[in-house]
Amino acid sequence: MQQALALAAHALYISNPNPRVGCVIVAHDGHTVLGSGFTQRAGGPHAEVMALRDAAARNHDVRSATAYVTLEPCSHHGRTGPCCDALIAAGIGHVVGAILDPNPRVAGQGFERLRAAGVTVDIDARAGKQSRALNIGFFSRMVRKQPWVRLKAGMSLDGATALANGESQWITGEAARADAHHWRARACAILTGVGTMLADDPLLNVRNIDTPRQPRLVIVDSQLRTPPGAKALAVPREVLIYCAHPDAARRAALEARGATVIVLPDAHGRVDLQAMLQDLGQREVNELHVEAGGTLNGALVQAHLVDECLLYMAPRILGKGQGAFSGLALPQLKNAPTLAFQEITQVGADLRIRAIAEGHDAF
Amino acid sequence: MQQALALAAHALYISNPNPRVGCVIVAHDGHTVLGSGFTQRAGGPHAEVMALRDAAARNHDVRSATAYVTLEPCSHHGRTGPCCDALIAAGIGHVVGAILDPNPRVAGQGFERLRAAGVTVDIDARAGKQSRALNIGFFSRMVRKQPWVRLKAGMSLDGATALANGESQWITGEAARADAHHWRARACAILTGVGTMLADDPLLNVRNIDTPRQPRLVIVDSQLRTPPGAKALAVPREVLIYCAHPDAARRAALEARGATVIVLPDAHGRVDLQAMLQDLGQREVNELHVEAGGTLNGALVQAHLVDECLLYMAPRILGKGQGAFSGLALPQLKNAPTLAFQEITQVGADLRIRAIAEGHDAF
Repeated sequence: MQQALALAAHALYISNPNPRVGCVIVAHDGHTVLGSGFTQRAGGPHAEVMALRDAAARNHDVRSATAYVTLEPCSHHGRTGPCCDALIAAGIGHVVGAILDPNPRVAGQGFERLRAAGVTVDIDARAGKQSRALNIGFFSRMVRKQPWVRLKAGMSLDGATALANGESQWITGEAARADAHHWRARACAILTGVGTMLADDPLLNVRNIDTPRQPRLVIVDSQLRTPPGAKALAVPREVLIYCAHPDAARRAALEARGATVIVLPDAHGRVDLQAMLQDLGQREVNELHVEAGGTLNGALVQAHLVDECLLYMAPRILGKGQGAFSGLALPQLKNAPTLAFQEITQVGADLRIRAIAEGHDAF
Repeated sequence: MQQALALAAHALYISNPNPRVGCVIVAHDGHTVLGSGFTQRAGGPHAEVMALRDAAARNHDVRSATAYVTLEPCSHHGRTGPCCDALIAAGIGHVVGAILDPNPRVAGQGFERLRAAGVTVDIDARAGKQSRALNIGFFSRMVRKQPWVRLKAGMSLDGATALANGESQWITGEAARADAHHWRARACAILTGVGTMLADDPLLNVRNIDTPRQPRLVIVDSQLRTPPGAKALAVPREVLIYCAHPDAARRAALEARGATVIVLPDAHGRVDLQAMLQDLGQREVNELHVEAGGTLNGALVQAHLVDECLLYMAPRILGKGQGAFSGLALPQLKNAPTLAFQEITQVGADLRIRAIAEGHDAF
């Protein structure tokens, strides 16, 4: 199963919006690997089919063998045929699955279908936790109907993302910036605000990583102030711009650049962030990677919409500067959102701090 | 030697302003411990004498034995007689020392004196690094003639020490606050600013730790605005108040409360922080533990006087709040002081981050 989990991780940048799944088929002797594989790009074969193909290519007989698979095999016709049927047809005798597929179209029916066909099924709960963590965005979308929101920020030891004058390139070191691209690459979409678009004109794409796909770009832009000539709009990928007040001319200019403009105002004339997340869930966004300024970051936190913080902390002191969550104003300390530290890693001279918002992974 | 280092750590809260030193006397067989000890309170016996007494109390013959000692034995008459003479008189045959005593009155003369008396001497450089780290304040005072400045702050994930409205109790959890008292207890003095005195009226003493001494309290207070009735002045210990403009009546009121007022103005009419550190060095302060607000913290950083940051980071987001170094204003990012992460530890739900200012430990 650990081998299957390692294979699943190979699908990290690839299988979106499908889950990252690995499969290893083992012979009766309990250790000879007959075939293995992981989920390919959406529309391509799932892990089970890849493993069966691998075994076939190596002329291995998989009849009565055991398939270790990091997620319940699918039972429905999605972009591909049901993996259950493929396993049954191949004569697999035993399936060890890590966790139930949260997709309501599967949700136990995969294991049921296997059992009905005489395949014995076991669940490996420990591996299930790892599989769920690897697919937190997929689980979030299936269960909560919205993406897992991971907010990235680079900051100083004293929490500043920029000097008071706005200077911010670069606070963290090269290794931290390279690491951050891996988190972009695994996301289905990158979210930013119009403030960042106007101040930095960033590309917000994945660079220096061998990946077959660029995440979509999502811009929160109440007034549609994003310049149609922004560099980020020239990157080949889908761009979604959420606004509250669609000026017709600006909308046309942005649509002419290939962007999709979505009107989702809240009662205060700003973009309804909660509704935006629901819409992004509908659009099959699993992990939403936020790289924005203090205003949007603060608004997301204020609305309890940030699930995870990914902070790169440089060992530097900036003093009076711009805060990563400056848009958040709390009446009292007891109102401060609480997280739990998940993982602290030194990346170059910087620290990478991952923390998950309290209760947000309990779904 | 590791046992000697572990013993030295027992002197952490006790031996100030003397260094923390451990000594283990081992028999010819290379493993039987004949006696051991660590430095007692200033004026009391040093580690070597404690170890010799321990051996004598156990009726062990230490002639020709080896003494492992974490700092070069002293050769001068300070508050006690020279340890070298005690070791020579006891007939110790071999001394393994971790590092040379930086005290200019010793500085190699201890080892010389032992060698001259026929005692063989070896240096354990690896242990020397640990001994130096344990005594960083003593080394700083001996070499740089000023204390090692360790700045403590409790902050949120986004670097705020308080809400914009000033509310700050408590950002970090109970375990972090208890841990912080250990760092107070090992310091020779605790430094704060008049802003903190006025805003919080803190005790700034060591609580819930079994310690024989309270660190001195040092207050930076240009205008002598510290209220004579402040709680911190009622704690039995030495209090030093550094000012720039000594109003006679305020001075008399503070002195009546037992405080020592020192006038050290700089060219701008504020306290000359660099001169203050030199003065504290003269007053035998090894580790200076800073717990102040953003103004004084920022001024200390701006003057490059902070050697180490000890930050407790709570997994909470405060947004627009007060920064730990708000008094620091940088013209450009390249001017930002750089540190190196030293140790990251989870304490309760919080992180304890230790970082040392670049180049500051190269003395």
